[in-house]
Amino acid sequence: MSILLNRPSAASPIPLAALDLPKPYLLFLGDAADTTFLKTGLGLRDWAPDLCIAEHKCAGAAATLELPVMPPRAAYAAGARALVLSAASIGGAIRESWIPYLVEALAAGLDIISGAHDRLADNGRLRQAAEAHGRRLIDVRTPPPGLPIASGRRRSGKRLLTVGTDCALGKKYTALALAEAFRARGLDADFRATGQTGIMIAGRGIPIDAVVSDFVAGAAEMLSPDADRAHWDVIEGQGSLFHPSYAGVSLGLLHGSQPDVLILCHAHGRDRIVGLPDYPLPSIGRAIEVTVQQAQLTNPAVRCAGVSLNTAGLSADEAERAIAALARDWGLPVADPMRGGPAFDRLVEACLL
Amino acid sequence: MSILLNRPSAASPIPLAALDLPKPYLLFLGDAADTTFLKTGLGLRDWAPDLCIAEHKCAGAAATLELPVMPPRAAYAAGARALVLSAASIGGAIRESWIPYLVEALAAGLDIISGAHDRLADNGRLRQAAEAHGRRLIDVRTPPPGLPIASGRRRSGKRLLTVGTDCALGKKYTALALAEAFRARGLDADFRATGQTGIMIAGRGIPIDAVVSDFVAGAAEMLSPDADRAHWDVIEGQGSLFHPSYAGVSLGLLHGSQPDVLILCHAHGRDRIVGLPDYPLPSIGRAIEVTVQQAQLTNPAVRCAGVSLNTAGLSADEAERAIAALARDWGLPVADPMRGGPAFDRLVEACLL
Repeated sequence: MSILLNRPSAASPIPLAALDLPKPYLLFLGDAADTTFLKTGLGLRDWAPDLCIAEHKCAGAAATLELPVMPPRAAYAAGARALVLSAASIGGAIRESWIPYLVEALAAGLDIISGAHDRLADNGRLRQAAEAHGRRLIDVRTPPPGLPIASGRRRSGKRLLTVGTDCALGKKYTALALAEAFRARGLDADFRATGQTGIMIAGRGIPIDAVVSDFVAGAAEMLSPDADRAHWDVIEGQGSLFHPSYAGVSLGLLHGSQPDVLILCHAHGRDRIVGLPDYPLPSIGRAIEVTVQQAQLTNPAVRCAGVSLNTAGLSADEAERAIAALARDWGLPVADPMRGGPAFDRLVEACLL
Repeated sequence: MSILLNRPSAASPIPLAALDLPKPYLLFLGDAADTTFLKTGLGLRDWAPDLCIAEHKCAGAAATLELPVMPPRAAYAAGARALVLSAASIGGAIRESWIPYLVEALAAGLDIISGAHDRLADNGRLRQAAEAHGRRLIDVRTPPPGLPIASGRRRSGKRLLTVGTDCALGKKYTALALAEAFRARGLDADFRATGQTGIMIAGRGIPIDAVVSDFVAGAAEMLSPDADRAHWDVIEGQGSLFHPSYAGVSLGLLHGSQPDVLILCHAHGRDRIVGLPDYPLPSIGRAIEVTVQQAQLTNPAVRCAGVSLNTAGLSADEAERAIAALARDWGLPVADPMRGGPAFDRLVEACLL
């Protein structure tokens, strides 16, 4: 990080290089037997219904997202402009059995969008078909070129970032729900995506965990540029400051986002980092204290407005009790955005104070 | 960071993929007029004298490192196995005027090692010459493939990491001096390099700021693997937790290094982040408090043993007073490793307590 000459800076007005995807989508479910492996597809259907024209899958696959079923040509005629790989596979691979379906989609005029680790263009048949039909192969996990080193300069407009006590507990859904609630209140708000599913939902964004470490904070600065004073960017968090594998990613995103408001995301009953049983989660109070302290570097006025509690698996009564108990213990607004209700309204109001 | 299946883990015994460089070196000084632009060359001469066979430069260039002057063929005959680009250029470019000299070195049997941003193989003449002569073009800023996601698992052996109140104030030199002092006391110690100059000095390492963010902590775990209980890894720090552009890099390196001992590096008189005058440096006490707190995630027993104070530009008397004042103010061992003396001996002893 010593040679900074001739690098672009986030402070200079360069064009936003964040991915901008062709849309709307035909969702490809692969050979999934049920919705367990359709995390991306479920996210798209639930959060970007306007972008989801139809679904398509391998012959004999049982899973469905309950969208209209269309082959690529019909979907193109209905307006679709890209086929999205909506099923996860072990190791993030693109399965050989999917290739004929993807080639057919390219021939029908659709680009292909993938969030897999494997790069689409590394498959020779896909590369040839895309060239033959003049179509694009878009890997959402590949960051745009020309990302800047962070400048640390304060930007105009308001920003909210979701942070977590761990990975995989609702930071994306919380950000989506808050952005929607802000807009429902008549505010000008954008969801800013930092992971592959979020980018497909938003149609644009930067896959922050795939960015070279020197540029993470700069990418976050570029993702939420100067905006109108009353505008809100609601930014999808990544990882956790308390995760021994990913805390650096989270800190770069936190600094570059320079949030005015933090929402701490937590999963009810979780007390260890998933997959790392030697690592206990911090208490809610400790997590807020440390995260606010770190965030103050780039925005001394940052505050935590409350907690988003993932209560999946609890009954409605149990969830209500868990939310009330946490709110009482820590004296903060707490809600499960997936359940909505008055608790969520109070959390939204606390963000907008 | 959601799809972790099929990724290697630092906990499994994979071969160390850190760069391992051909050596010893012929140092190429380019067209430098004086030593101002020879940071890499000076570092190599001062810290890896055994690796530096000779120097070579463009016709008419005035700079010298006061090494024997040899053209590539003579250097090869004297044992050299690589030519190292030892001069910095604006923007980290490889200058066109250097190319004939580099082609000549390849023809003489030397590999070429570069820490520049430009990749050597992107130059067609270099690529062709390397292929024709069966030589390697080694970009030290390119991380090795196959880096793991951090496991957070505790490793055997002892580790020291140099951290800083800012960038560019002596973290590499402090680590080099401490590793040398440890060895002088009969201890088994390795300097672990995380930046391009450090990697050239050590002959191996990982350029941590060029690693994709998800893998930074994992790269740091790989850089200092399990070792004998009495063995010390002295790890070169990067960036600063207080730098708005790079704190995420520093945090990933801190967590993956899981240091037992921290040495805080600071430059006398510096009170702002270099190049970012809106960002004041933390006090020494605050810097130690925050860094230790963050480091406790992966090593609860971490401690800060003292401060390395860069006193370049001060007279010997002024430096002694500055060191004594800081030691008194914070109740810690303080020394400038470049000046050595009893203060440095006390700092070394404090590391080994």
